[in-house]
Order: sequence, then C-alpha cells, then structure tokens
Amino acid sequence: MKVDGTHYRSIWYDTGTDEVRIIDQRWLPHAFKIVTLKSLESFATAIRDMWVRGAPLIGATAAYGMAEEMRRDPSDAALNMAWDVLHDTRPTAINLKWALDRCRTYLQPLAPANRADAAMKLAHEIADEDVEINRMIGIHGLEIIKQIAAKKPAGEPVRLLTHCNAGWLATVDWGTATSPMYHAANAGLPIHVWVDETRPRNQGALTAWEVGSHGINHAYITDNAGGHLMQHGMVDMVITGTDRTTARGDVCNKIGTYLKALAAHDNGVPFYVALPSPTIDWTVQDGVKEIPIEERPGREVSHIQGVLADGSIGEAQVSPDGSPLGNPAFDVTPARLVTGLITERGVCKASPEGLATLFPERAAA
Amino acid sequence: MKVDGTHYRSIWYDTGTDEVRIIDQRWLPHAFKIVTLKSLESFATAIRDMWVRGAPLIGATAAYGMAEEMRRDPSDAALNMAWDVLHDTRPTAINLKWALDRCRTYLQPLAPANRADAAMKLAHEIADEDVEINRMIGIHGLEIIKQIAAKKPAGEPVRLLTHCNAGWLATVDWGTATSPMYHAANAGLPIHVWVDETRPRNQGALTAWEVGSHGINHAYITDNAGGHLMQHGMVDMVITGTDRTTARGDVCNKIGTYLKALAAHDNGVPFYVALPSPTIDWTVQDGVKEIPIEERPGREVSHIQGVLADGSIGEAQVSPDGSPLGNPAFDVTPARLVTGLITERGVCKASPEGLATLFPERAAA
Repeated sequence: MKVDGTHYRSIWYDTGTDEVRIIDQRWLPHAFKIVTLKSLESFATAIRDMWVRGAPLIGATAAYGMAEEMRRDPSDAALNMAWDVLHDTRPTAINLKWALDRCRTYLQPLAPANRADAAMKLAHEIADEDVEINRMIGIHGLEIIKQIAAKKPAGEPVRLLTHCNAGWLATVDWGTATSPMYHAANAGLPIHVWVDETRPRNQGALTAWEVGSHGINHAYITDNAGGHLMQHGMVDMVITGTDRTTARGDVCNKIGTYLKALAAHDNGVPFYVALPSPTIDWTVQDGVKEIPIEERPGREVSHIQGVLADGSIGEAQVSPDGSPLGNPAFDVTPARLVTGLITERGVCKASPEGLATLFPERAAA
Repeated sequence: MKVDGTHYRSIWYDTGTDEVRIIDQRWLPHAFKIVTLKSLESFATAIRDMWVRGAPLIGATAAYGMAEEMRRDPSDAALNMAWDVLHDTRPTAINLKWALDRCRTYLQPLAPANRADAAMKLAHEIADEDVEINRMIGIHGLEIIKQIAAKKPAGEPVRLLTHCNAGWLATVDWGTATSPMYHAANAGLPIHVWVDETRPRNQGALTAWEVGSHGINHAYITDNAGGHLMQHGMVDMVITGTDRTTARGDVCNKIGTYLKALAAHDNGVPFYVALPSPTIDWTVQDGVKEIPIEERPGREVSHIQGVLADGSIGEAQVSPDGSPLGNPAFDVTPARLVTGLITERGVCKASPEGLATLFPERAAA
C-alpha cells in the first residue's frame, strides 16, 4: 500500500538494479527503512531477526532467498543448504517450511543451469499469489462496508475497530483485516479506523502507521477502550485477522481479540474475521479446548519499546522489579461471537455449514 | 499495609517528630520515597502534582494541610486562605472539597487558640474513618473469598483478578478492591492475584507493587489477557473498585473494567465491586446513558513512563508520530454483569432492591 503517496509491497524485486528489497520493520512505526538483501545470509538474518514478520511475508522472503542462492550456485548441494539455512531461522513457522518445500520440489528436477531463473519466477509467483488472496479478501470485505455505509447518512464514515496488525506489513500487500479498509479508501468510501494498541507488543502502532501512511482517518486507542466505544454506538464493525481458524469457525488470534468479540456481541456490533483459507485448520473443532496457547517471555510485558526523549529507540520498564509476569500470546474467540468469516472465496458464517458453502471440497472430505 | 515487613499508611503523623509524612507516589512502583510535608504550600504541591492520589487520600491530605496551617496561624483569614489554596489544587475533586468544608465548618466556631489541636484531631479522625470503612469492606469481602476457597481442594489458592489500583495507595490504608486480598493474606488464606496492567496509565504497576510488597502471590498481565484466563478456569473471582456506582448498581470505573465484566459473565466467574458507600450516586440510574466519560489527553496513550536502561525514569513514545489518539478514561459496567457490591455495611446485589437492603434510609428517600 502507499507510504507518503508511493506504493510499496513489504518485499519486492527491483528490476532496475536486479535486487530484492524489503522494509526493515524493526524500526516501524518510528522510522521507515528500506534494505537490499544480497546474499542467502542476509535473507536468513532478515527472517530470524524479524526484519520481516507475518507468515505470508516470511514465506515470500524465503522463496526470494532461495532464488538469490540459485543465482550464486544452482547445485543440488546449494539447494539443500539454502533450504536448511532458511528453515533454521524460524523452525516453527509453518508457512516458511511450506514455501521452502515448494521451491525445492519445483527446482530439484530442473537442470542447474535453469534453476536461477526458475527460482526467481517462482518467488514472484508466491508473492503474487499472496497479494491476490488478500486483494480478494478486500473485495469481499468492501461489500460488507458498503452495506453498512448504505444504512448511514450519506458521507458519514463507517467506523471500524481492529486489533493487532493483520496489515500489509504482515503480508506482501493489502493485508487481511486491513484489505477491506484499503479497498474502501481507494473507492472513496469514508471510513474511520479505531486501532487497538495491542499490548504487549503494540502491533497497533504498525497498523496506525500503515493506515495513516495510506491517508485513512484513524485513532490509536488502548485495548481497554473498545467496549466503551461500542456501548456508545461509535463502532459500526469490528474486523480482525486470525492465526488459525477451526473447522467449526472458532478463531484463534492475538490475545484480547475475545474481549472485543464479547463487547461487539453485547452491543450488536458485527464482528468479522478476515482470513486466507490456508489458515483454516480443518483438523481442529473446539478452539478453546484444542488449541494450545503459547506463553511468551514476560519481558514483552514488563518492557515497552518506543522513542525516548533523545530521539533514540529504547525500552522502558513499566512493572515493578521482581513482579511475576504472565504473557499468554493468543486467545480463542468462539464461533458464536463471530458474525462472519471473510475469505478469498467470499464471506460465510463461522460454522461448519457456513464454511461448507465456500469450501465444499473440504466439507466433503 | 506492609512494605518489606513494615506497616505503612499512605499518609501518617509521626508523633516522635510531630510531622506529617506521605509516600511520594510519583516514583512508584520503581522507587519508594517518603516525604515530610511541613507547610501549607508543600501539602498543596503534593495534591496538585499527584504525589498523593485517590479520592480518600486527597481528602485526608487536605485535612492535614489545614491542620498544619492552623499551627502556623489559626486566624479566620488563614483558615479561609488555606481552604482556597488547597481547593485550587484539584478543583474538580469532590472528596477534596468535602474534607475542606468539613474542616472549616468544624474549626470556624472555635476560638483561634483552640484550632491547631482541633484541626489535627479532625485530620486524624478523617484518616481513621477511611481506614475503618476499607477495613470493613475487607472483612465482608473476605467472607466471599472464604466461600470460594471452601469449594476448592484444600491449600489451592483462590485466584482473583483486579483492574486498576483500588489499593491502599489510593486510600489511607487497606484500599477497597485490595482490602479483601490483604485480609485473606493476613488470615493465611492462600490467594493469587492477576493484576491487569491498566493502560494507559499502568496503575496495575502500583497494584502489583502493593500486593508484592505485602507478600501476596501475583502476576502482572496485559489488559488483553483476562478473557483467556477466565476461559481456561484460571480466575475464581474478579474484584475491582469504582469511581461512581449508580442507584441501580451500574458501575463506573477505569476504562476496560466493562470488558472484564463481560468475560466474567461469559465464563461464570463472579464479578464483585468494592466500594465505600459515599461513592454511590443516588441521583443517577442508567450509568451508560447518564454518566459523562472524561476524554483525557492523548499523550497518556502515546507516551509510557518507566525505568530506562540507564536506571532513570523517563518516557517512551509507542505510537507513530502524528497518529490521532483516543483516550476515554472510564467505562460503565451495567448492573446485570455485576455479581455483587461489597460495601462497609456488607455485600448486596447490584440492584435498587439489593442496595435497599443495606441502605434502607436511602431507598426510602
């Protein structure tokens, strides 16, 4: 999406210089830095040290890293070594392994001389596929925003609330929960976005930077504020992303999503979840009972990163020395609280029957 | 309550040195500093610049400030001047005006020569009354904790969750929501307290410091975490304070309280509110419709105070430059979500009928 009027992807190939570039996200939202990745090691560092983040973007970055290595050395040994080096950066990232497997399976049968071009072509393809999925999510989500707008006085903005960063920075472009927002903005439909801070890691700051950079009206609020706003009719729709959605429509997402879903339900505000269909886990039914929730380091809670008075980026410790810390990273919103799922194939109810209308091939399985 | 084994009030009179002392709360939870207030000006500064905070403590501080001034000059002119100086520190604090009026009404008819002693005696009385109200809240709240403990395997801690700081630092001693916790701890009943961070001002850090200093097991968590903990049976009871409770039992409290009440209701966890009866506003019924919610400065959201890497206390800016900020400071939890109100007179349902059982003189009015 746009930053100061210029369109960016989170990873792209510069045809002029024949180089792959990324946005180094470690400094956002405080500084916008572009980095050129020139070797397998630099790609591995970018993934490992979270210069890039978000499953789809990590997958695309790995594919470009593989392509870069094939230019240097297209041998079988280099192919396998690149798979290992890139996979080891974040071994539990399922999308990383998926992208690497896809690259190796495609490249292995080819003559080494053909691998460099083929690998780069495949990396473009993986990136473009992600963009297309998120573009379609946006097109379907835009219809919901249009329906809400139609019920309001002309010109009044549709007020959306979102949690965490399910934005273009976590994908290659558009984002998931943000894609309908960007489509609405591009269509000239007035919207206003309430951006949850999303403690402990404050991903809301990324979302605020994203939508602000694209010129969308918004306000950054604490995670505590959403219930009050919904009570007072100041939210027309909630839209979030998801890390994993179960076969019956339970939604696992960033910690705190469940609280917003409860408030939406209590106040008759529609609660939508935007998701690429590969994040549906057809093997799981009851999300609360079956999905193990990661407990992350307490330091994420006790220490907050930001810009200090001298302009440098640093940390401030907010909790008392020695206080024990709890940091569950995700929660599960039961399907009963979800108004609908917005996928690349369309919108459906958060239920086995709803999902079957969009994914009949899965429902039959 | 206790700090490293020594009992403190948030304001006290040192009979040895004949001086009034406070805890300078600006540095908590990172540093514990005691300050002696020696002149009317120092009392005024302590209130104005929030060295002390919380309605009951502000009232008691004003009463001691009045007493200090009467020692210096017990004239009518000084009495009126002290009222003005202290009132101007935080002109909207209703408890401040209440305490000052009480002092002036009591002292005015006395001969100036008798005012110094009488004023100090009244200040002690105002402080002691607050301690007694909160002690009684704790005794009644302890009964609820005991009932929950009785249903659990012996020795398993009762797990409470609290939001904001309704602790002894905001009162003279005991606190409101924390009083049952201290009573349980003092009675040797095992408890564990989940302390909500309470963005934007992180009052949870004060609560964590308080309960930790008294030796109570606890964990500091983000405001987002409570719903997940309740879904997984890790919370036995929620207990919060309140700034204002309506005649039908709606509870106005720190922003985010409503979200915890929704989660408690959704998971069958009892949700209690501890309150001194003077905070019941008998003139208001529907809290959501009738109570105006203060919108506070956005800087509270964008900038977070904490201990920096060099050990100094400073601020970190977390949101992007230029992003608009929203900061509603309170929300209202409808009575239907409140299991009970814990007052100094006992526990009642959050309803007109419930309140009438404890306050028949009001119900008849």
